[in-house]
Amino acid sequence: MLSENAFPACPIATTIQLVGNKWKLLIIRNLAQRPWRFNELHRDLSGISQKVLTENLRNLEKNGLITRTVYAEVPPRVEYKLSEIGRSLQPLLDTMAEFGSLYKKLVNESNPEVKE
Amino acid sequence: MLSENAFPACPIATTIQLVGNKWKLLIIRNLAQRPWRFNELHRDLSGISQKVLTENLRNLEKNGLITRTVYAEVPPRVEYKLSEIGRSLQPLLDTMAEFGSLYKKLVNESNPEVKE
Repeated sequence: MLSENAFPACPIATTIQLVGNKWKLLIIRNLAQRPWRFNELHRDLSGISQKVLTENLRNLEKNGLITRTVYAEVPPRVEYKLSEIGRSLQPLLDTMAEFGSLYKKLVNESNPEVKE
Repeated sequence: MLSENAFPACPIATTIQLVGNKWKLLIIRNLAQRPWRFNELHRDLSGISQKVLTENLRNLEKNGLITRTVYAEVPPRVEYKLSEIGRSLQPLLDTMAEFGSLYKKLVNESNPEVKE
């Protein structure tokens, strides 16, 4: 399941190598809610191309953070969800949510006229 | 200090917009230790170009996460450090470190012959 690649000595750099880009973080955010289908993700993540979405999903799957399940239906249904280790990213999502909320609160206080 | 840009409704997406790329996360990791000079950062972040480092530092400064201080020495010394709100990213760094350590532990257990 897990990649056999070598990872950086620094554990923060390891996490960055695994999920340190915008799209992977947004994919993980979505999959933390429930399983998602490819086309659903493509519609939700505005601005991502099918190619880049596929590359990021494959990389997350290769590193054991998500699983891809094909259901034998007509047409076949393909669902992505977090693996057990992928679910260990929940505290990271929680601290991201906390920081984002704090930041927006500070922006609004210093610029009360600015809409979000 | 803080940007007047609008941010996404989702607080996780806000954090991703602010720091969701490899270089910004590595810069924040370094500045959480102590102030750094430009050339030190450039040497430490292997693979980053001066142009990309400059762009990321300017963006972090624009959004109020880091400060840039010029000391009137000969030659002038320029130091970057986390702002007060930038220091609020510490819990994010902590959860990244925890996840990276857990992931490497699991990789080593499932592939005992693999070196880090």
